[in-house]
Amino acid sequence: MRKRIAVIGAGPSGLAVLRAFETARRAGVDVPEIICFEKQANWGGLWNYTWRTGLDEFGEPVHGSMYRYLWSNGPKECLEFADYSFEEHFGRPIPSYPPRAVLHDYIAGRVEKSGVRAYCKFNHAVKNVTFEPETNRFAVTVKDLVGDQVVTEAFDHVFVANGHFSTPNVPYFQGIESFLGRVMHAHDFRAADEFAGKHVLLVGSSYSAEDIGTQCHKYGAASVTFSYRTKPMGFDWPDSFEEKPLLEKLVGNTAHFKDGSTKTVDAIVLCTGYLNHYPFLEDSLRLKTRNRLFPPNLYKGIVFEPNPGLFYIGAQDQFYTFNMFDAQAWYARDIVLGRIALPEPDAMHADSEAWTRREEALADAEEMIDFQTDYLRDLLAPTDYPFLDVDKVAGLFKEWEHHKAEGILTYRDRSYRSTITGNMAPVHHTPWMDAMDDSLEAFLRVREAAE
Amino acid sequence: MRKRIAVIGAGPSGLAVLRAFETARRAGVDVPEIICFEKQANWGGLWNYTWRTGLDEFGEPVHGSMYRYLWSNGPKECLEFADYSFEEHFGRPIPSYPPRAVLHDYIAGRVEKSGVRAYCKFNHAVKNVTFEPETNRFAVTVKDLVGDQVVTEAFDHVFVANGHFSTPNVPYFQGIESFLGRVMHAHDFRAADEFAGKHVLLVGSSYSAEDIGTQCHKYGAASVTFSYRTKPMGFDWPDSFEEKPLLEKLVGNTAHFKDGSTKTVDAIVLCTGYLNHYPFLEDSLRLKTRNRLFPPNLYKGIVFEPNPGLFYIGAQDQFYTFNMFDAQAWYARDIVLGRIALPEPDAMHADSEAWTRREEALADAEEMIDFQTDYLRDLLAPTDYPFLDVDKVAGLFKEWEHHKAEGILTYRDRSYRSTITGNMAPVHHTPWMDAMDDSLEAFLRVREAAE
Repeated sequence: MRKRIAVIGAGPSGLAVLRAFETARRAGVDVPEIICFEKQANWGGLWNYTWRTGLDEFGEPVHGSMYRYLWSNGPKECLEFADYSFEEHFGRPIPSYPPRAVLHDYIAGRVEKSGVRAYCKFNHAVKNVTFEPETNRFAVTVKDLVGDQVVTEAFDHVFVANGHFSTPNVPYFQGIESFLGRVMHAHDFRAADEFAGKHVLLVGSSYSAEDIGTQCHKYGAASVTFSYRTKPMGFDWPDSFEEKPLLEKLVGNTAHFKDGSTKTVDAIVLCTGYLNHYPFLEDSLRLKTRNRLFPPNLYKGIVFEPNPGLFYIGAQDQFYTFNMFDAQAWYARDIVLGRIALPEPDAMHADSEAWTRREEALADAEEMIDFQTDYLRDLLAPTDYPFLDVDKVAGLFKEWEHHKAEGILTYRDRSYRSTITGNMAPVHHTPWMDAMDDSLEAFLRVREAAE
Repeated sequence: MRKRIAVIGAGPSGLAVLRAFETARRAGVDVPEIICFEKQANWGGLWNYTWRTGLDEFGEPVHGSMYRYLWSNGPKECLEFADYSFEEHFGRPIPSYPPRAVLHDYIAGRVEKSGVRAYCKFNHAVKNVTFEPETNRFAVTVKDLVGDQVVTEAFDHVFVANGHFSTPNVPYFQGIESFLGRVMHAHDFRAADEFAGKHVLLVGSSYSAEDIGTQCHKYGAASVTFSYRTKPMGFDWPDSFEEKPLLEKLVGNTAHFKDGSTKTVDAIVLCTGYLNHYPFLEDSLRLKTRNRLFPPNLYKGIVFEPNPGLFYIGAQDQFYTFNMFDAQAWYARDIVLGRIALPEPDAMHADSEAWTRREEALADAEEMIDFQTDYLRDLLAPTDYPFLDVDKVAGLFKEWEHHKAEGILTYRDRSYRSTITGNMAPVHHTPWMDAMDDSLEAFLRVREAAE
C-alpha cells in the first residue's frame, strides 16, 4: 500500500516539505501520497496578513502575527532558496529588505510554479493526532472549517509544520488588569498608525520589541519605551526611545521598573515571545521546548526521537529560515524515502544531546550564527538539495548584525550579494524610514526608477 | 456502579447543575459522582473579568467577553435565584442594577456556601467528547492546563454549560483590512477609557452595541455611531450618537453605509454577536444553532434529542438567565435521577418543534418575554425548585423594556421589587451616568449613605 503523509501547515515549513517530495516525484521517484492541512484559506503561514485578531470567522485562534508595514528584518539573501532565487522570481535583482507582500509573493511563486497546490486542503484545521502502535500509523483528526465536519484519517508519517510564532506567551504584570489603555501582545499588533501621538511601552527586548518599537516611531508615536528582562538591546535609538529594566508593576497608567524609575504610558505591547504550542498532538507526540536553536529530543532538529515517524519542521529558533526549512524538508524526505537511515534511538539521542549541549555554551550572536550554519551544513551534506554556500550566508548574517549596530533605523537601506546568483542587490528607491507605502507595487517601482 | 456526570463549565449554567444535584444530595438522595471541568482558574464564567484578550497564558481562547464598568443591563430582580435572594447574600436590599463585581459576588456566594467547589476542576479545558455506543457512555478528554497533561475519562452524562457568548461572530466588511485604527469584536472590548475623544463605530444593534456605545459615551468618546442590519435600536440617544444602516465598506478610515451616508471614525467595534460554538464535541453531539430562544432538537431546551444522555444548559437566547439555568438544571437533574421520564424520541421532537414554531412567530420583545416565561413555567412545574413567580418576573421585564425606552442613559437608576423577598430595591447613591467607579465597595457604600 502506498504510504500516506500528513503535513500540518502550509507556511514556509510545510511548503518546503511539499516542494521536497514534489522535486523527487518529478525526478521519477515513487513518493508517498501527501495531504497538507492548512487552517487558513491560503498558503504562506505567518506571511499571510489578516486584519483579524483573537479568533477567526470559524472560532479558531487566528494564526497570524503579521502586521502592516512589516519589512524583512534580515537581508533576503540570507533566506533565499537555493532552488529558486529572487532574481528568477522577479526577473531581475531587487533590494535586500523587501516588505511582507514581496516575500509572500516570492514564497508563493515557487510553490505555485511547482504545482503543489493540489496537495493542500485549505480551511482544514488539525484537531487531534494520535499514534496507534497496532498499525504503526497516526490517526489525524481534521476539521473542515467551511463544511463544519470532522474526519479522521490514517497516515504513516506526520510532518508538524504549524510554526511557533502564533501562540503568544503572555505573562502577568501586577496592576495590568487596571491599566486604562490598550494592552496587547505583539501577536495582535496590526498597524502602527493607531499609536501616533501615543506613549507606547513595549515589554521585551527581542525582534518583536525592536521592530514594533521602530514601526511605532516611524508612524508617529510620541515615545517608545522598552523594558528588558536580562539586558537592553543597546542600539543607538532616537531621542524619544528609552530602555528600562523589567516592568515590576503598573499603578494606573504608570509603569514602574525594577530600577525604581517610572514612565506613564498610553498603551502596552507585550513583546514577550511565543510558545511552541501543539495542542493537536497527544501528549506522547508533543515536543516540549522553549524557543531555542536546538530543541531537545529532535534528532537532526527534525525527527521526534520518542516516535521517529513524526517530524517537526522549523521548530527551532531561527537565524536561517526558508532555506533551513528546505534543508530540513529534504533531509526528512530522504528518511521517508529510505535514502537516509535513522540510527538506533541511543545514537540519535547522543547526537541531539551533543547539539543541545553545544547550543547551551554559545556566548553571542556570532556564535549562534556559526552554530546554525554548522547545523545547516550537517543537514545539507547527504541530500541532493542544490548547493547553498552556507559560509557566505553566515558572513551576510554577521554583516547584518554589524549594520544593525551601526544604525537600527538605516540598516534596511543596505544591499547584499546573492549567494545563489552572485549578483549585488540594487539600492531601494526610498530610504526605509521614508517608505511609508509597503505594497509590492510601491517596492517594485524601483524598476521604472532604474529604467 | 455509581453513575458519573461531567459538567463542562463552571459559569452560572454549570454552577446551577452542581447546585441542583447538591441540593438533592443534602436531602438524602443518592446522586451520581460529578466533576465540573472549568477552563478558567475560578468559577463565574462570563462574570469573571480578565484583562487578557485573544489567547490566554495556556494558549487557550480567552473565555471572557466581560469588560470594565459593566453594570447589569437588566434588573437584578429578573435574575434572582429562587433559593438564594440578593438580600440573603448581602444582608439587606441593594439597588436593582449592580455592577459586575456585585453580581459575581452573588453568584459565587451561593455556590461557595453550598460547598460545591469540591466538584470543580479549575484550569481544566475539555478538548474532546465522544459517545461510545458499546458502553453507552461518553469519553471526555480533558487537558490539565497547569499540569500540561491530557486525560480521558468515561461518563454516563455530559452537561454542556460552556456558554455561548465567548466565541465571536466576526463578519468581513470590504476594506476593513486597510482601516488604520483599532478594529475589534466586542469580545475583546475591555475598557472604554481607550476611546475617550475618539469617534467610534459600533457595528450591530443588540445589547453589546447598545451597552458598549453608552459606555464609550460615559467615558468620553467624541461620537458614537451604530450600524444596524435590520432596524435601528431607536432609543432617545444623546446628540453625539447616530444610527446608520448597514456598513457597506470602508475606504481608508471612512465608513460607507447602505443609505449612501458616510462617517469617518477612529475605531471600529464589531458588536456582531457570538457563535454557539462547541469545538470539543464530536459532530454527532454538536448542537447546531444560531442564538435563538428555542434551539431546535433540544427537548425542553436542554435534552439533546439525537443523544438524550447529553444536556445543554443555557444554550438559548436569554431574557431569563440565572433562574432559568436553575430551572433547566433542576429539570435535567430530575431526568438523571429518574424522577422525570423522557418520552419517546418522536414525542420529544414534536414537543420541541412546537416550541420552535411558536418562537418563529413571535412579533416583538413582549411576546418573547411571554414565550420564555411560559418555557420557564413548563420547566418549573414538575421539579422541587423553590417557588418562582414567573408572572411577576415577566412583568418586571416589561417594565424594564419601558424604562429603557424612556431613557437609555437613566433606566439603571430605577428600582424594582424582589419577587423572592417582596422588598423594594433602594435607589443607588449615584446616578449611573455619574457612577464612574464600578467596584463592589463603591456600590455597597449605599449602606453608609443610608445609615
